[in-house]
This record gives sequence, C-alpha cells and structure tokens, in this order.
Amino acid sequence: MTKRPSREVAALSEFELIARYFTRACKERQGIGDDCALIDVGKQTLAITTDMLLEGVHFLTQADPEALGHKALAVNLSDLAAAGARPRCFVLGIAIPRPDEHWLAAFSRGLFALAKQYSCTLVGGDTSRSAPVDSASGGATWISITAIGQVDRRRARGRSGAKAGDDIWVSGRLGEAALALAIRRGQRQVPSPHREACLRRMDWPQPRVALGLALAGVASAAIDVSDGLVGDLGHVLERSGVGARVTWPDVPRAAIFKQLDVATQQQLVLAGGDDYELLFTAPASRRAAIKTLATRQVPLTRIGQIEASPGLRVVDDRGALIEATLQPFDHFVSGT
Amino acid sequence: MTKRPSREVAALSEFELIARYFTRACKERQGIGDDCALIDVGKQTLAITTDMLLEGVHFLTQADPEALGHKALAVNLSDLAAAGARPRCFVLGIAIPRPDEHWLAAFSRGLFALAKQYSCTLVGGDTSRSAPVDSASGGATWISITAIGQVDRRRARGRSGAKAGDDIWVSGRLGEAALALAIRRGQRQVPSPHREACLRRMDWPQPRVALGLALAGVASAAIDVSDGLVGDLGHVLERSGVGARVTWPDVPRAAIFKQLDVATQQQLVLAGGDDYELLFTAPASRRAAIKTLATRQVPLTRIGQIEASPGLRVVDDRGALIEATLQPFDHFVSGT
Repeated sequence: MTKRPSREVAALSEFELIARYFTRACKERQGIGDDCALIDVGKQTLAITTDMLLEGVHFLTQADPEALGHKALAVNLSDLAAAGARPRCFVLGIAIPRPDEHWLAAFSRGLFALAKQYSCTLVGGDTSRSAPVDSASGGATWISITAIGQVDRRRARGRSGAKAGDDIWVSGRLGEAALALAIRRGQRQVPSPHREACLRRMDWPQPRVALGLALAGVASAAIDVSDGLVGDLGHVLERSGVGARVTWPDVPRAAIFKQLDVATQQQLVLAGGDDYELLFTAPASRRAAIKTLATRQVPLTRIGQIEASPGLRVVDDRGALIEATLQPFDHFVSGT
Repeated sequence: MTKRPSREVAALSEFELIARYFTRACKERQGIGDDCALIDVGKQTLAITTDMLLEGVHFLTQADPEALGHKALAVNLSDLAAAGARPRCFVLGIAIPRPDEHWLAAFSRGLFALAKQYSCTLVGGDTSRSAPVDSASGGATWISITAIGQVDRRRARGRSGAKAGDDIWVSGRLGEAALALAIRRGQRQVPSPHREACLRRMDWPQPRVALGLALAGVASAAIDVSDGLVGDLGHVLERSGVGARVTWPDVPRAAIFKQLDVATQQQLVLAGGDDYELLFTAPASRRAAIKTLATRQVPLTRIGQIEASPGLRVVDDRGALIEATLQPFDHFVSGT
C-alpha cells in the first residue's frame, strides 16, 4: 500500500517516539515506562502489560504457529513476573490473512497450554482479517496480547526501587535467544545439541512467573530481559536514579558461548534481546534468601552492584572497564 | 509475503473462528462473548475490552490520523459504556510503516483529546515498525487498544440480563455510519450537509459513556451497536435466552434516510455497523426514568419488546413480519 509523502525521521527510536507522542501525566500508581502499569483497586493492585508480535518483524512467516501462540502469551507473563504479579487473565487481538484452520489450531494449542499452566484465562479479544478479501497481497499476521495480573498492594514492584549498595541478580542464562537469531539468519553455525537448545530458548521462552512471585518483598526492583541486559538494566538505573557496576565474567551464559570470540559473546549476552529472564536488585542482606529460590533449571546469579554514581560500568575480572560497542535492540532503528 | 498452502475454510466467520479456537472455560465473572470481560477485584468490578483498527480493513490509507486516534479509543469506550463502567485506563499497541511525525502528532492529538474528556489514562503500550526496515512493501498501520473501566460490583451489566416483557431501547440514530461507507465507496450520492453529517458519524463516533453510567441499575442488558442492530440485538437475545419483536418504523434514523428506498434503509439502519449507539433493555416500569436521560443530541427511542419466544421478529407498523434480506457485518465474510 502506498503512503502519502511523510516527514520521516529516520533516527526516531522506539523510546523517543513513545516519549514524544504517547506520554502524558498519569494519575495511576505506575504508567508508561515500566514492564507493567499498576492500578490500585481496593487493597489489590492490578498489573497490566501489552505486547505485540508481527509477522516479518518479530517472527518469520514460516514460524511454528504452536510456538508462536506460546510466545505471544509468554512475553506478557514475563512482564507480570517482573512486577511480582500473579497472572489472572488476558485479551487477544489477532489479525490473519485468512482463516487457516491448521494454523489456528496449532496457535491456540500453544497459547492455551501456557495459559492453563499459569491459570491465566482468555477473557476477550478481537479477530479480523489482516487485509480485505479482494486484496492480492493477503496481509500479514498480527498478534497483540494484553495480560492482567494481580498482586497485594504493598508487594507490587517496578523498575524504580533499586538503591545504592543493592546486589544485581539475573535468573537463568543470557544470550541464547540472540544466538538463535544469528543461527536462523545463517550468520552462525552452532553444533547440535547446542543449536536446538538455542532455538528452543528463542521460540519457547519460559516466563519466570514463580520466581517473580517468590521475589515479592525481597527484590527492590525488577525487569524482564527482553531488549538485552545493558538496555534493560539501563531502564532500572534511570528510573531508580542510580548507577551500576556489572562484572562481565559473572554474567551467566551457556557453555556454547566459550567457543565464540569475546566481542561476539558480549554482543549476544549483554545486548541480545528475547531472553525473558528476570533481572532484579535486592539488598545484600537478602543473599541467603535469594539463593534458596534458585533451581537447577533456573539458577540465580549475582552479577554486580548498584552504585550511587549514575551510569552503567561493565568491568572485567580485574575491575577494568570494558569498552564494548554494543548494538541496542530497537524495532525502529534495527528493524529486526 | 507468501504463505504456505493452507487448509482454508472460506466460510469460517469471525464468530465461528472465535468459538472453535479461542473459547475455553472461564473462571471469571464474564468472559468471551460480551462487549467487556468482567473481573471482580474486592468490591469493585473491572470491565476489560479490546478492539483493533487495521489499515485497509477498518480504515483507508488516506484516513485522517486525528480522527483515527479518536476512533481507536472511542470504539473501546463504547464497549465500556455498554457494561456501565467508568473508563479508567487503556494500553495502546501500534505498528506503523515508519515513524512519520506528522501522522503521529495528529493521531496522538485525536487519541488524547478523547482520553482527557473521559479521564481515561494511557498507562502502557507497545510500538513497532510494521515491516522490517529493508522491506520494500513498507507494511500497514495497525492499532490495538485495550481499555479498562471500573464499576461497582453490583452494577456491572452485560448482554445476558434481558427478560421477557422488557422494553428495547436504542440511543441516537442508526445507519448514518453505514451510509457514510457507501458514500466513501462512491456507491451513494448524498447532498450536503447530510453527507458531512454521515461522514462525521463514521469518523468521529461519540461513545455513550455518560448514558452507560446513568443506566446502571436501570437497564437489564446492554450492548453497543457496532455490527448492526439485528446482529447485536441477536447477541443479547442469545445470551439472555429470549426473543424479541422490533417495530421497524420506530427505529430512529436521520432525515436523509427518507430519500432512500425501503430496502436500502433497512439494510443500512438494521444491519449497518459502526453506529456505536447503546442498545439496551429495561422493564416497562423504568420508562419514565429512562426518558429523563434523553437529551436533544442523544435521544432515546423505544423500538420493541423482549419476548419469551426465541428469535428476532422485525415488523412493520401493522405488525406484519418484514422479510428483510440483510447482510451481516463480518470481517471474514465481507472483508470490509
């Protein structure tokens, strides 16, 4: 479809766009700029989050529809986990080129399997063709989910509670989903079974819902790692008005990363998106309590410390600054 | 983009698609199949609704972006009005081919003007390009809004409360938005100022929020007329387990409709979509109370009665059945 000539601003990033056109004063407890909005209803707080998946932007046309159904909900549950909220319900907006029963059956299977796992009910939605019936192009598939979680009013948390001296923790391992994207694009060759493990991390992310709930009253701030560690930790620092030091060798990654050069490792592990692990801060007094929450499948690793001085400093094991040139993840700049 | 060969079912309607693939047991007070989902939180009930607008399907590429911002939120507030809920907050998902500042400024102006009018705060969202940066096609604009309203637990209403003997009421006038679509497609010629009035009804729908709130405790069931009177009243009848008789001459329409033949009038007024008026039922004992809620701009008209016998009967002024062949509005069948 042709568009009218536009005053296009090539460098307008997703964050700038939101700040410029979609940010207004908010009367609610927490609005734009966090994983979830928080609205108080009596003694309860509802956490609200919304995420889209677009064919050609967030997934390929040939993507497995069952994995897609899973992922569309998983990325939203991951945001609820960051807020410490228990998933309650969600609404689904879906536009498809045509009603393909095979695709729809697989998509809904993946969607409802995860919804059932977390007792998160589909309560409403909107469906449409993504292009007119007589259109030759057919249109792309678009998926939008808004999920709502519930949390005790005093236990909801966001990105703004990190304090100087707090430890910085991350769940699981980072970088595998970003490596999977490079594999799928043919930019990297990775032997089995590492290859399959990476692809699984990308296609079937597991939201850290149980951990998010267990961290209630323990974590001072939390965010889910969707845009990459450096970018997401940056959001916490900005909202909390603090800085941080992260020790690169401590950042958890899969064994396969040892086979990659350091610059690639740092790009994928520090700036790769789509991890859906929880990054959180907590006072040092909570170390023992946090260690009891770690499992074999979801280890918890201390990777640095919040500092009063603004900015993020990533250092090597001798404390020397790493001058990494990392490409942040942004739909408007990178287009991936 | 090419799609794999699919088992396509041409006649699968939007309602069948939802019933077959996206309906599961719901533990909430009200789930799929109503204007809003209702979830109880303490003594309050939250009403949740979601609606999408897609370029090429719901609006034309050259549509006024300010009107589009207004309409994207208006159609959601209309659903909250049906539920009797006071708008509280909303989230926005928006995908655009490129960050066009002129378009974005106008869109957000229309969006926030309506949001401010009803103190409905934007609390979160997701933004994306609608196609990769290197894509030649550019992608279409896609807008998804989920709105949340709040209502006293005992005062929330849906489509299921209509009882035999109840009056059937409708606010405003029906059919002008459908006539506007015919005007815009070049299928109808309508003289000024009727032409502009119709286009305004289509592009700038006014959600009946105040009426929706005032009908709390008065209306037994309500729905907003978005798919056409016959279709939407049909939803109320089905959910309430009742039937209805509607007197065609009583159905309110603009003066311009007198210039059209009866078959066209019936098609547009009874089956045209996009009216965003409230259709509601109430006991006859409430007639006086309801009449006090009518205003010059938003008249309230009694158009029929709920009956125990299932089915919808549209009759002329002598009580004879009208055998109207109406085309229902369905994104998957009509593609408009």
